[in-house]
Amino acid sequence: MEKTKVAIIGLGTVGSGVARLLLDFGDRTGRHAGRVLWLEKAVVRDLSKPRDCDLPKGVLTEELDDVIDDHEIEVVAQLIGGLEPARSIMLRLLESGKDVVTANKALLAEHGPEIFDRARELGRSVAFEASVAGGIPIIANIGQCLSANQIESLHGILNGTSNFILSKMHEEGSAYQEVVAEAQRLGYAEADPAMDVDGTDAAQKLAILAHLAFGARVHWDEIPRSGIDTLDIADVRYAQEMGYKIKLLAVAQLVDDGLELHVSPTLVRNGRPLAEVGGPYNAIRVVGDAVGELMFYGPGAGQMPTASAVVADIIDTAVGRTKITFSTLELWSNQSARVNPAEYANARGRFYIRVNVEDHPGVLSQITSALGGEQISISSVLQHETETGEDVVPLVIMTHETTEGAAEKACQQINALDCVRGEAVRLWVRD
Amino acid sequence: MEKTKVAIIGLGTVGSGVARLLLDFGDRTGRHAGRVLWLEKAVVRDLSKPRDCDLPKGVLTEELDDVIDDHEIEVVAQLIGGLEPARSIMLRLLESGKDVVTANKALLAEHGPEIFDRARELGRSVAFEASVAGGIPIIANIGQCLSANQIESLHGILNGTSNFILSKMHEEGSAYQEVVAEAQRLGYAEADPAMDVDGTDAAQKLAILAHLAFGARVHWDEIPRSGIDTLDIADVRYAQEMGYKIKLLAVAQLVDDGLELHVSPTLVRNGRPLAEVGGPYNAIRVVGDAVGELMFYGPGAGQMPTASAVVADIIDTAVGRTKITFSTLELWSNQSARVNPAEYANARGRFYIRVNVEDHPGVLSQITSALGGEQISISSVLQHETETGEDVVPLVIMTHETTEGAAEKACQQINALDCVRGEAVRLWVRD
Repeated sequence: MEKTKVAIIGLGTVGSGVARLLLDFGDRTGRHAGRVLWLEKAVVRDLSKPRDCDLPKGVLTEELDDVIDDHEIEVVAQLIGGLEPARSIMLRLLESGKDVVTANKALLAEHGPEIFDRARELGRSVAFEASVAGGIPIIANIGQCLSANQIESLHGILNGTSNFILSKMHEEGSAYQEVVAEAQRLGYAEADPAMDVDGTDAAQKLAILAHLAFGARVHWDEIPRSGIDTLDIADVRYAQEMGYKIKLLAVAQLVDDGLELHVSPTLVRNGRPLAEVGGPYNAIRVVGDAVGELMFYGPGAGQMPTASAVVADIIDTAVGRTKITFSTLELWSNQSARVNPAEYANARGRFYIRVNVEDHPGVLSQITSALGGEQISISSVLQHETETGEDVVPLVIMTHETTEGAAEKACQQINALDCVRGEAVRLWVRD
Repeated sequence: MEKTKVAIIGLGTVGSGVARLLLDFGDRTGRHAGRVLWLEKAVVRDLSKPRDCDLPKGVLTEELDDVIDDHEIEVVAQLIGGLEPARSIMLRLLESGKDVVTANKALLAEHGPEIFDRARELGRSVAFEASVAGGIPIIANIGQCLSANQIESLHGILNGTSNFILSKMHEEGSAYQEVVAEAQRLGYAEADPAMDVDGTDAAQKLAILAHLAFGARVHWDEIPRSGIDTLDIADVRYAQEMGYKIKLLAVAQLVDDGLELHVSPTLVRNGRPLAEVGGPYNAIRVVGDAVGELMFYGPGAGQMPTASAVVADIIDTAVGRTKITFSTLELWSNQSARVNPAEYANARGRFYIRVNVEDHPGVLSQITSALGGEQISISSVLQHETETGEDVVPLVIMTHETTEGAAEKACQQINALDCVRGEAVRLWVRD
């Protein structure tokens, strides 16, 4: 049997999982690749650190040059996180003639065009299935399996930490801070979960998907986004009362003036497939003009799910499929923007608006006239009877379809009203 | 731009959809293939028949030889249904040097080994994404994207007609025959839906998936199966009352003594992703040892979803990815049986048993002792108060986990009891 020599850079959680699949299941990978995938080197920063996988003697090294200079190593899984030295290592690997597999979404979202262009110039390939949605093969599905389609929309639950926290808030009725602490104890949230819960992680993944599915060329930081870190448990309860679940949705869809892109906590109606995605799972709903509606569901993170995606990419690269895909798709080429981001203010949809108001006559009419001034009509209003003595009550309004800009303006006017305490909460609604 | 000449054999519903994608969206397929996919010929039985797609002059022909003899045609989508002449045409195409794409699951389930072996001998490839689950790219996902995994189980809703009928029975509480008539009116069931509703279609698709995912070598007719055509609306209602939906599940899972395979109407607990798959949709839950649980959801049939899968295969074949996959995977080789079907009687699970019994003392104890004799313990019993005068009442029993064989034996004993009218209904349960 033919042999392809492989190296891993970075032997953290995912790297150890990849090593384990290559070392312990050689028969399996051999069967799918028609050749032996031989783990030649694993580069780490500190040889003395204890690791949870046993490597054959001579595989572990601190020297990147042991990989760079070994011309028999053809495929390298670059599994270091962050931007540097990940970016420089990536470029050095490509320049030394290696095809590269990576799980580093932040790197691609930041430096994707540079890295992909350099790989093309050098006749090399970059595979990145593991960079979005962990174990769900969404990159291959969009890039290859749906290639007969114009993708019309993507709606993704792309951050497992946020989805775990939201699911717990719905199930237990507990506030955000309590649930975050629980998620950290269980290993579903990092010590500093900021990038997960503020929408950054989802926006980076969305930027990658938007490149792939729509030929957009957008930097993740340009994507309007809000996270779940400011979400009030009261809104979770009201959503539930009205038959919805709040999900952090990453949205990319073709609209009249371009590509609508945003990451937003969104009320999704119960019974819709995306509403039923619980716990740390991810899911992506894809609509293509030929195929119609598809949904992909699975683990969005974790050692072995991510390693599953990395090793699939290593196999695809070793057998030559990645090279074909990479060269035909012109992925992320600086020349390839086929659609521009649409004006966010023009994005259409329904909204959930909650505002705390003084409990006296005429208040509802002031609020509704602020909405009416922006041509926003109201679909339903929820105001419970108050206990005696409370002088501020929450008022929940569901609008009919309008634009993001009109809803934002109406909320600014509402916030300026004397009868309103604090600021209006505004969330997208998806029926 | 390079050009790959393509032909279509059979211009029915799917063939017309494929022609439309190739002719009207050349820019799109060109972008994904890095070359022009040029529809050179479309072979039909009767030139005079009216068609719903406009073909350029000279494309339509009644002569298969116009394709066979044209050595510039590299890829052929063979879209004729049934076994013959589909099989002979398939072999002739391969022998004349064409790579073939097909949507014909019956042909592959019957003659897959012969066709695949011949293609290998000739150095050609066969792509068959559209043969299972229509627009859901399940073949590529199992064959490529999950190649780092040992697939442990597949649970599929693989027949859209059955799922449409079951969904309607649940929603409307109408009997099977009424719903079938409605499905036929709406185009979701054929005039003779026998193969769809009796489990044949699902078993053929399951045989293909079992080959691909487990290296099994099983003829579809050896797969134990029952359909929904004998399903009583009473059982749909009882299932609903207990918090389940009945789905026609195709199951393939590794167990101690081999590969468990069957197609059975099954009670799936509400809230499980498969329970929420309604209408004519298909879904496949896949568990891999590295990735964990994934679910793929989408349209299992229809013109454009199926055409989407066929054209993705045409692109994969034109760019050379199919050739690599086909040659490395040793798909369906006669040499490749890696697992044998397990004894169906040993398959473990819970069961729903309904039996019509005379309403007099001692009956429940006779039934439960028949179950006890096979070491089957009871999880719950449902028996409603009867209206005065009824002397036969339905008794519904949910068992704890047991084996298919024990449940079958117990039901035979129950059927032989004097207090029992008719035969016990027995369905699988999936929590």
